[in-house]
Amino acid sequence: MADKTVRVPVETIHRFMIDVFTSLGVPHDEAKTCAQVLLTSDLRGIESHGVGRLKMYFDRVKQGILSTTTKFEIVKETETTVLIDGHNGMGHVISVRAMEMTIEKARKYGMGSAAVRESTHFGIDGYYPLMAVAEGMVGMAFTNARPSMAPTFGVDPLLGTNPIAFGAPSDEEFPFLYDAATSISQRGKIEVLDRAEKPTPAGWVIDRVGKTATDTVAILAGLKKKENAFVPLGGIGETMGGQKGYDLATMVEILSASLQGGMFLRALSGFNPDGSPRPHRLGHFFMAIDIEHFVPLEQFKKTTGDILRALRNSTKMPGAERIYTAGEKEWLKEKEIRAQGIPINPNLQKNLLIMQEDLGLDSYNFPF
Amino acid sequence: MADKTVRVPVETIHRFMIDVFTSLGVPHDEAKTCAQVLLTSDLRGIESHGVGRLKMYFDRVKQGILSTTTKFEIVKETETTVLIDGHNGMGHVISVRAMEMTIEKARKYGMGSAAVRESTHFGIDGYYPLMAVAEGMVGMAFTNARPSMAPTFGVDPLLGTNPIAFGAPSDEEFPFLYDAATSISQRGKIEVLDRAEKPTPAGWVIDRVGKTATDTVAILAGLKKKENAFVPLGGIGETMGGQKGYDLATMVEILSASLQGGMFLRALSGFNPDGSPRPHRLGHFFMAIDIEHFVPLEQFKKTTGDILRALRNSTKMPGAERIYTAGEKEWLKEKEIRAQGIPINPNLQKNLLIMQEDLGLDSYNFPF
Repeated sequence: MADKTVRVPVETIHRFMIDVFTSLGVPHDEAKTCAQVLLTSDLRGIESHGVGRLKMYFDRVKQGILSTTTKFEIVKETETTVLIDGHNGMGHVISVRAMEMTIEKARKYGMGSAAVRESTHFGIDGYYPLMAVAEGMVGMAFTNARPSMAPTFGVDPLLGTNPIAFGAPSDEEFPFLYDAATSISQRGKIEVLDRAEKPTPAGWVIDRVGKTATDTVAILAGLKKKENAFVPLGGIGETMGGQKGYDLATMVEILSASLQGGMFLRALSGFNPDGSPRPHRLGHFFMAIDIEHFVPLEQFKKTTGDILRALRNSTKMPGAERIYTAGEKEWLKEKEIRAQGIPINPNLQKNLLIMQEDLGLDSYNFPF
Repeated sequence: MADKTVRVPVETIHRFMIDVFTSLGVPHDEAKTCAQVLLTSDLRGIESHGVGRLKMYFDRVKQGILSTTTKFEIVKETETTVLIDGHNGMGHVISVRAMEMTIEKARKYGMGSAAVRESTHFGIDGYYPLMAVAEGMVGMAFTNARPSMAPTFGVDPLLGTNPIAFGAPSDEEFPFLYDAATSISQRGKIEVLDRAEKPTPAGWVIDRVGKTATDTVAILAGLKKKENAFVPLGGIGETMGGQKGYDLATMVEILSASLQGGMFLRALSGFNPDGSPRPHRLGHFFMAIDIEHFVPLEQFKKTTGDILRALRNSTKMPGAERIYTAGEKEWLKEKEIRAQGIPINPNLQKNLLIMQEDLGLDSYNFPF
């Protein structure tokens, strides 16, 4: 094992992820789906949701709280809507199929949506709008998540980091893609700070009396013990609009549970009262809007591109290098990753070796 | 004229607004629609968007940039979608009709949406989701607005305060209603600070070099001259997630212009290059999702209520009186306003008297 981050070719990591999922019992086609979602995250430079999460899925399968075979049950279906029970199968498989149905409905009727209950961690939220964008549509995806964010004026971690993802095609080389938690930050970023031995910026996390916490090591322990909570986008209190981030997180919770007859808030902890692990029972909501039902796709793309270019080309703050639009940094990152490989840090190297050995994947000769 | 704020009965203000719109040339039924939207804002305690805005509409009609008769043109319609050209008629009238069509489509097909172009200021964004909520649906509304917010790392006011509104029914006395700008603050709040002779909180507004501005009087002048700009939700730069507010504002801009073949960013200024006024040419996007297409309405309401109660009843920060959910403060406010009347500040008293005299509305005997 190397004592520092090494780069591994994209194709190697891709194959390894498929092999891990297959060896765990995921049918080959579905293993490819799971790996594809994780790889998309790595390619976009979102290390927290790519191969870095592979061990999490591995552990959950071993714990028996994640089904490798996915029972995709259509509970109710109408022209534009479908309600799905995922029976705690692979979140990526459930969600890709749900989004495919959403897109098909939108193509036929103009709009489509899927509400999913009893699902599991589905990777990056942005993957699903990108599926719609590839079909000339606007896509949206919402999911709840295990409790970690406190409401404004509260201290209990109740809401997940509840992301919103929105994608729209443009006439540029890459689409507009927003994909972000409704909290200021999330666990993955704290873990990055931990590896870099850096403090957590003031205002990201609070303690049990609502004061800002900055000791990164203590925060990682405190999040597990529910002694720390993430702060909603907009900050502590209402002065800087913290209630907006909190309310948006609640909106995502409603869209992910109420349309589904699904679980929410504390019920998503992944633990039984006796401390033993159980499925997370997540809910998702997907939407697609077919652009051609409104205007020609090329016209939509041009308008969107014109908006993005006007923003990017506007006057910068002194010292600011450039103004980005959502999805641009990730597109730039993808070029780098494809050329140089996926960065694998020492902790991740250890996890890959554990999975390799456990599953007997002897054909891989990692450079660590 | 009184030198301080006085309360006027809700019914008086309601009738006066109808009379002002009618006298300006708005057909009676449509005048009632406009007044109803403004009144809903006053009842909810959102003074910036109620009778306080009446003079703005009055001025725009007088300037010839707002048509009192609304030509509601259906440009394209499919099962779940409709594209509307509002021909710069009354924004409230256009938007209520658009939302009615959206709701009808959702009732039939499960989802509905309306993209509107060439519209004008439509009052509070939250009015339209409330229409869906009243029909047992989830509703959403988005609008762009005259440029006033700078992108992250930029200083030009390009984006509007671009609000997002989302409503969902619950089993409580009031629904969940989110309705907020994607900037931290907006002009109405700066005007409130101005009347109270208070400085603007640091971080709400920036100047031409990206530094925070706090001189409220200077900011009100600077916003007009484009020398100040609002800061996206999440703050200046990216440390506290400012790019998320900026990206959400861009999402709203795309939803309000690209599906419409409509205007965006600088084109919404309301001014010709020679400084003369012109229509604002705004775009909106409305959505409705019929709940019964997924689960029984009562089940949805209970799940939503359970989420809201769990948030409200969770552990508070020391010193915090209560935890609110979106729409709760406004519901509490409505009880107060209905009992005590709508507060009319001295500046607004002056404006009401100007309109009363200009339009010859002699029957009103205001207590100022």
